[in-house]
Amino acid sequence: MEDLKLIGVWYSTFVCRVKCALQLKGVKYEYIEDDLSNKSDLLLQYNPIHKKVPVLLHGGKPIVESLIILEYIDETWPERYPILPKDPYERSKAKFWTKFMGDQESTFWSLIKTTEETKEKKINEILEILKTIEEHGLGDKKFFSGDDMGFVDLAFGTFMRWLKVAEVIKEVKVFETCTRLQAWFERFNEVPVVKENLPSQDELVAHYKLKFCIG
Amino acid sequence: MEDLKLIGVWYSTFVCRVKCALQLKGVKYEYIEDDLSNKSDLLLQYNPIHKKVPVLLHGGKPIVESLIILEYIDETWPERYPILPKDPYERSKAKFWTKFMGDQESTFWSLIKTTEETKEKKINEILEILKTIEEHGLGDKKFFSGDDMGFVDLAFGTFMRWLKVAEVIKEVKVFETCTRLQAWFERFNEVPVVKENLPSQDELVAHYKLKFCIG
Repeated sequence: MEDLKLIGVWYSTFVCRVKCALQLKGVKYEYIEDDLSNKSDLLLQYNPIHKKVPVLLHGGKPIVESLIILEYIDETWPERYPILPKDPYERSKAKFWTKFMGDQESTFWSLIKTTEETKEKKINEILEILKTIEEHGLGDKKFFSGDDMGFVDLAFGTFMRWLKVAEVIKEVKVFETCTRLQAWFERFNEVPVVKENLPSQDELVAHYKLKFCIG
Repeated sequence: MEDLKLIGVWYSTFVCRVKCALQLKGVKYEYIEDDLSNKSDLLLQYNPIHKKVPVLLHGGKPIVESLIILEYIDETWPERYPILPKDPYERSKAKFWTKFMGDQESTFWSLIKTTEETKEKKINEILEILKTIEEHGLGDKKFFSGDDMGFVDLAFGTFMRWLKVAEVIKEVKVFETCTRLQAWFERFNEVPVVKENLPSQDELVAHYKLKFCIG
């Protein structure tokens, strides 16, 4: 077995992306659950700048930031299940969309903290982002990268899981008008590695309700 | 000659990164100066999401976002002057630092708009970021990537050029205590492709003074 460890927390969709990628590559690793309310020395030692999960430790060397970890995994084990396309132009498009989604992270995240007064504005803001992703990024494809789940799907699927959780908790409907994105999200959730590595919506709802003292 | 066009504006350090990378690779291209106050149809057609420069057009296909363009250039012309390291771990570190710097973009940018009241707070905020980059990213190396200018240098050097301009305009001293970063920046400015592709500090100061109606 490789000297490969993943430091994470079970409810982080950023961590789940990495778990999915490692399983797609068929790479065995040791998973170490951290406690973000009392961070381990291991986490502080290996991610001294951000002190966040996920951290992938490979032969004692730390790789941080979930999308950078995904690229690292793809470059280190290139033989099995390509996560990013090989073609430079297709790669650039995949990176564009993950950057675009990543740049909206705080907007997505803010939904769970929105009040009655700001709710509608927030929903419209997120909907506009989703429509752009649906129209320009996904189009009529099965997955963002074509017929198989790839880099953008892993990045965005985990975001969407989180967004669905926020929808349930805040009792709002954000993406029901994005029919193509919804159909894609259903396909994403049916992929075996996604089923095996992402916590269920109910588990996440319970976790975030507790965290934000809702309900 | 390749069917390669770069849409930019002369004062954008994001565009200058791309110019440097293309010259490092020895690739000939046609440069098209845009006018951001009256954006061209070409720009709107090829970057419909952000409507920003730089846009690299290769065989009619658009690549956007300056760091994604840099990676595209490195992957498309891999033979000459590697911009990113080949080793996956070293690559992950380079991407970590460019992401870290990119995430601070709005903080850097805000210096030029700061008021007398917020000036000190802003300077301390930026200084803390610079100290982190200096200590954990640069260390005692000649360039971020070692002996030769690479991905992180191109990304951060162009930021620093901009920060120096903001220093001059706002009559503040932000990074004089970062002696290793200063020495690195002097080395960066002496690299021939940097000299040839970045506007001078004076030209940029004049441009931004006019833009922000200062002085």
